[in-house]
Amino acid sequence: MAKVGIVMGSDSDLPVMSKAAEMLEKFGIDYEITVISAHRMPDIFFDYATKAEENGFKVIIAGAGGAAHLPGMAAAIFTMPVIGVPIHSKALSGVDSLYSIVQMPAGIPVATVAIDGAANAGILAAKILATSDPEILEKLKAYKEELKDSVVAKKEKLEKVGYKEYMK
Amino acid sequence: MAKVGIVMGSDSDLPVMSKAAEMLEKFGIDYEITVISAHRMPDIFFDYATKAEENGFKVIIAGAGGAAHLPGMAAAIFTMPVIGVPIHSKALSGVDSLYSIVQMPAGIPVATVAIDGAANAGILAAKILATSDPEILEKLKAYKEELKDSVVAKKEKLEKVGYKEYMK
Amino acid sequence: MAKVGIVMGSDSDLPVMSKAAEMLEKFGIDYEITVISAHRMPDIFFDYATKAEENGFKVIIAGAGGAAHLPGMAAAIFTMPVIGVPIHSKALSGVDSLYSIVQMPAGIPVATVAIDGAANAGILAAKILATSDPEILEKLKAYKEELKDSVVAKKEKLEKVGYKEYMK
Amino acid sequence: MAKVGIVMGSDSDLPVMSKAAEMLEKFGIDYEITVISAHRMPDIFFDYATKAEENGFKVIIAGAGGAAHLPGMAAAIFTMPVIGVPIHSKALSGVDSLYSIVQMPAGIPVATVAIDGAANAGILAAKILATSDPEILEKLKAYKEELKDSVVAKKEKLEKVGYKEYMK
Amino acid sequence: MAKVGIVMGSDSDLPVMSKAAEMLEKFGIDYEITVISAHRMPDIFFDYATKAEENGFKVIIAGAGGAAHLPGMAAAIFTMPVIGVPIHSKALSGVDSLYSIVQMPAGIPVATVAIDGAANAGILAAKILATSDPEILEKLKAYKEELKDSVVAKKEKLEKVGYKEYMK
Amino acid sequence: MAKVGIVMGSDSDLPVMSKAAEMLEKFGIDYEITVISAHRMPDIFFDYATKAEENGFKVIIAGAGGAAHLPGMAAAIFTMPVIGVPIHSKALSGVDSLYSIVQMPAGIPVATVAIDGAANAGILAAKILATSDPEILEKLKAYKEELKDSVVAKKEKLEKVGYKEYMK
Amino acid sequence: MAKVGIVMGSDSDLPVMSKAAEMLEKFGIDYEITVISAHRMPDIFFDYATKAEENGFKVIIAGAGGAAHLPGMAAAIFTMPVIGVPIHSKALSGVDSLYSIVQMPAGIPVATVAIDGAANAGILAAKILATSDPEILEKLKAYKEELKDSVVAKKEKLEKVGYKEYMK
Amino acid sequence: MAKVGIVMGSDSDLPVMSKAAEMLEKFGIDYEITVISAHRMPDIFFDYATKAEENGFKVIIAGAGGAAHLPGMAAAIFTMPVIGVPIHSKALSGVDSLYSIVQMPAGIPVATVAIDGAANAGILAAKILATSDPEILEKLKAYKEELKDSVVAKKEKLEKVGYKEYMK
Repeated sequence: MAKVGIVMGSDSDLPVMSKAAEMLEKFGIDYEITVISAHRMPDIFFDYATKAEENGFKVIIAGAGGAAHLPGMAAAIFTMPVIGVPIHSKALSGVDSLYSIVQMPAGIPVATVAIDGAANAGILAAKILATSDPEILEKLKAYKEELKDSVVAKKEKLEKVGYKEYMK
Repeated sequence: MAKVGIVMGSDSDLPVMSKAAEMLEKFGIDYEITVISAHRMPDIFFDYATKAEENGFKVIIAGAGGAAHLPGMAAAIFTMPVIGVPIHSKALSGVDSLYSIVQMPAGIPVATVAIDGAANAGILAAKILATSDPEILEKLKAYKEELKDSVVAKKEKLEKVGYKEYMK
Repeated sequence: MAKVGIVMGSDSDLPVMSKAAEMLEKFGIDYEITVISAHRMPDIFFDYATKAEENGFKVIIAGAGGAAHLPGMAAAIFTMPVIGVPIHSKALSGVDSLYSIVQMPAGIPVATVAIDGAANAGILAAKILATSDPEILEKLKAYKEELKDSVVAKKEKLEKVGYKEYMK
Repeated sequence: MAKVGIVMGSDSDLPVMSKAAEMLEKFGIDYEITVISAHRMPDIFFDYATKAEENGFKVIIAGAGGAAHLPGMAAAIFTMPVIGVPIHSKALSGVDSLYSIVQMPAGIPVATVAIDGAANAGILAAKILATSDPEILEKLKAYKEELKDSVVAKKEKLEKVGYKEYMK
Repeated sequence: MAKVGIVMGSDSDLPVMSKAAEMLEKFGIDYEITVISAHRMPDIFFDYATKAEENGFKVIIAGAGGAAHLPGMAAAIFTMPVIGVPIHSKALSGVDSLYSIVQMPAGIPVATVAIDGAANAGILAAKILATSDPEILEKLKAYKEELKDSVVAKKEKLEKVGYKEYMK
Repeated sequence: MAKVGIVMGSDSDLPVMSKAAEMLEKFGIDYEITVISAHRMPDIFFDYATKAEENGFKVIIAGAGGAAHLPGMAAAIFTMPVIGVPIHSKALSGVDSLYSIVQMPAGIPVATVAIDGAANAGILAAKILATSDPEILEKLKAYKEELKDSVVAKKEKLEKVGYKEYMK
Repeated sequence: MAKVGIVMGSDSDLPVMSKAAEMLEKFGIDYEITVISAHRMPDIFFDYATKAEENGFKVIIAGAGGAAHLPGMAAAIFTMPVIGVPIHSKALSGVDSLYSIVQMPAGIPVATVAIDGAANAGILAAKILATSDPEILEKLKAYKEELKDSVVAKKEKLEKVGYKEYMK
Repeated sequence: MAKVGIVMGSDSDLPVMSKAAEMLEKFGIDYEITVISAHRMPDIFFDYATKAEENGFKVIIAGAGGAAHLPGMAAAIFTMPVIGVPIHSKALSGVDSLYSIVQMPAGIPVATVAIDGAANAGILAAKILATSDPEILEKLKAYKEELKDSVVAKKEKLEKVGYKEYMK
């Protein structure tokens, strides 16, 4: 059974939200990815959120833009963590999405990441699972080293060749 | 049967939302007022929104603050107009509430009024009913005259006594 | 006689505002669409708003950008509902338009939709008329099913082919 | 005949707008001050703006808060300068008022001053009249000296007594 | 002698600020246009502002972007009206320019127009001069008719051909 | 060993951050609460974050205001989840805190909750632990019922006594 | 001769700006504090900025609110560092002051600190002087220890007495 | 030994941050430029900041975008001045970066420049060094003349050829 559900309000969010899937793949975590609009199919959405626990989900990653209700409504139903990804919106650049997701009332938290921060949502899901899974924890540590090594390589190159050469 | 449902996410919104009720009373329109949190009691909320039509509602007025999902989720279910009232919030002054309510995706409009604009929500509900009810239309016209007369009286007083006297 | 008037401050708003007309056509609702600037032709605007009722309008949809006064001034004159569409503006992305339309004083509501949300304005007009017209109500329900079916189809495709294939 | 008309949308704006009157009095400029709501009495407002020129007004100072349409609509009708004063609003601190006043479309300028900047509106009206009235110009120069002297006195006191003593 | 000085902080502002010049030309008003940076050449700027009156200027139009100090500093020195044009800036879209220009302290008003609103600055300068020049007043009235006629033509075309044809 | 570390940048954050502790107590989860400023004692902070895992922490809750670097820096070091609480700040109401916490770069997520949302941070920590602890999961479900019952009681009271009586 | 000049636009800024003086006193750095308005006494301001170098100033700390031009104009004239302190403003909370100070054009930097951050301005001036003065450098290091010790004491107390006792 | 350290959180910041290097080269000031992420390599970052003084740095210029912690964390460790450059970010245009850098708590100032203002950061570093280095002071004065001459040339050209010719 998949441990993480990735859900988004519209398939136009897929180029952003697929980054969460890629991260989970990297950490070897089973997930299911789907499109469910809380506004356009509220009954299917309710069913999804209600059955998420029995379907084995430990974490839901929900992305939405504008008046972004999907993450908060999922958190109202699902008892384990919901991670919210505010999607960049045309007029308000995702500030609307961010406020709609992060400013939840007391009792119903959504773990919010940066605007378009789906990769971080995937990593956060892994971090959550790592609280009880030493294998994922090790993978996260290895990933952190990878991140570091990649910047160290850039650091060394820049210090060696100078910024003019580097920018070419 | 009541024609308008007034619903809010928390009883702390009542001092604001009661203004909608007062307006409906003024226009002689039956309403029901209640507290239902989309986040804290999603099943009761769904039931409310789903049965709203058979309960006779023609309009729902929904007020909420912060990550304000109540109006938009009501609009996802109820087919007739939903009026959203963004409630002033502590940290973000209601900008979060406003964006969470007004920035709805295509297909699911919420008729949004000003931050804390519950009186206007009541009037807007009356205007909506007035599209098929000449009696309410007349009452709205009379109300508009009232509004005008009240400012005209102030205008005349100010012009007569001068601003120094007026401000005392 | 047309039941809905669509009016905008400038013909540069037409690509956005035409979406309201398309929606009304979809629901079989008669409308008139025109360009009237409250700032550049205030007398024609006043005449339009004053005669809107006797011309049969039940709802006015007004779109404007920047210091967007058209919807609010229409609401000051016309007794039935005015729906305001804040048009995206170059410097301030439509936040100026949104605030100029939604923050109306008590007594004069404008039913505000999202920035560039003209399609939703058309749907909201239909919802308003549906409060007394069962035929439009049925069409709105059918439209809601359509919306749902369209996302369900995407959901099923995504679940079937996977996100990598879907994004190609 | 009064040379400046001061108009505001609500008598709650009077504590702010009276500062414009005080400034005009200081410069010996005749003015008329009144309350006219563009939203609550559009016909009286139109009449006011249309007759402003024949009533002798050279400048109109218009103050309004929230969706502040009064200054822009006055500028749409009156051919000489309109000065707009954005009034501080509860939820949005006057940002709504500012955007509604300053972001006018090409062709219809409003000379906008700071939020609650009614004193400056009075001074700006005097500056406008000073372009053809040497006496007002002299008074403005004297006022500028006054302003300067008042800060110079504070400067000297602070330098003399030190900040600790000064703040007592 | 020129009656209006147009000044901007950088020649990159010229595509915007030239619109003010075009408007003044339209109304037959003599002007001088130049580039003076208050930050990069404060002495030349001071000289310019100090001599503006004896050079015959009745109005200064000053455009600047970002931390836009030019209009406010001009208003600190020149006794007659200064019109400020906030120029669109890359990171903050001109909100920085707007706040830097409009939020002047009591005593030193700047007549602020919309972001990039240089055409309106030119018209506002004409309106100011029109308070004592009936010829300019007539030209402004004619211009207003022109503006109106241009929208009326669009209105008639749209009503005649319909929005689909119009948008082609 | 404590499972959750609560840390804040200043003891002035304690009235807010203590709400996280109260929630953890409610769910019977061991925690440690302390004050560590990433800015004023970076070495102690580094030591804290580095040893957090061996000290048994599964989750860190970090609260900070203004340029709020504590949560993000903790997330840079600690491999399991860091929950960030943006504290309300005087000038910018916590928007600065929110942006400093939520807008983390790819690779280093912080699970951000609402401004001053420390209670939700405590609940989110419990939700995270509940992914592998059925007892906490049950307590969270019971808490959700509690929340619901509390609103249901208000709902029933409001429907019974009416809003006028309720507001007394 | 004083090494640091502290200047503010209005004596109402003194309660904030005096914090800069207190910090300089703490580090034993001579300073002069005064009130000079760039808007109300531009000639005195120019004189101050022009003579600052020959008066021995190495750093100028300038505080201003609203359309805050003082720091930027000082930086346009004085060749050594100018530190800008955006003062909290009534309507816009100091965002106007911040943007007016920090968004300087290329060529004329202002070292900007937080809104109302005058204490930090004093410390920054000390840091600047410390680049060539080992004694001040030592004092800054001692101050840093002081800051740390003060939080460490709070940390220890909180860990010892618990948050409930601490908050009493 | 280099007197200035330029550090950025990601090599994607290099096109902006290289402007600081160019300025330092112009003033003949030795610098070192590198990429160090406070989030991805906190140990290397700590080492860098801790050894900066013994490596001869008098000033650190740190650029970062989004939740920009690099400048503030550097200022927490390094005793001499840290200049922060907020880098333009995709969703929030650098407002997030600006707030994360400028809103530092009392005790730990960061000398913040404009969004993407790296050239100004280089100049500010030079100004800081100029407080004890007369040669750099002279170079800064010469640079100021250069800036002025460049605008004077544009001024003269514009006044000579007129704006139409100039814009070609």
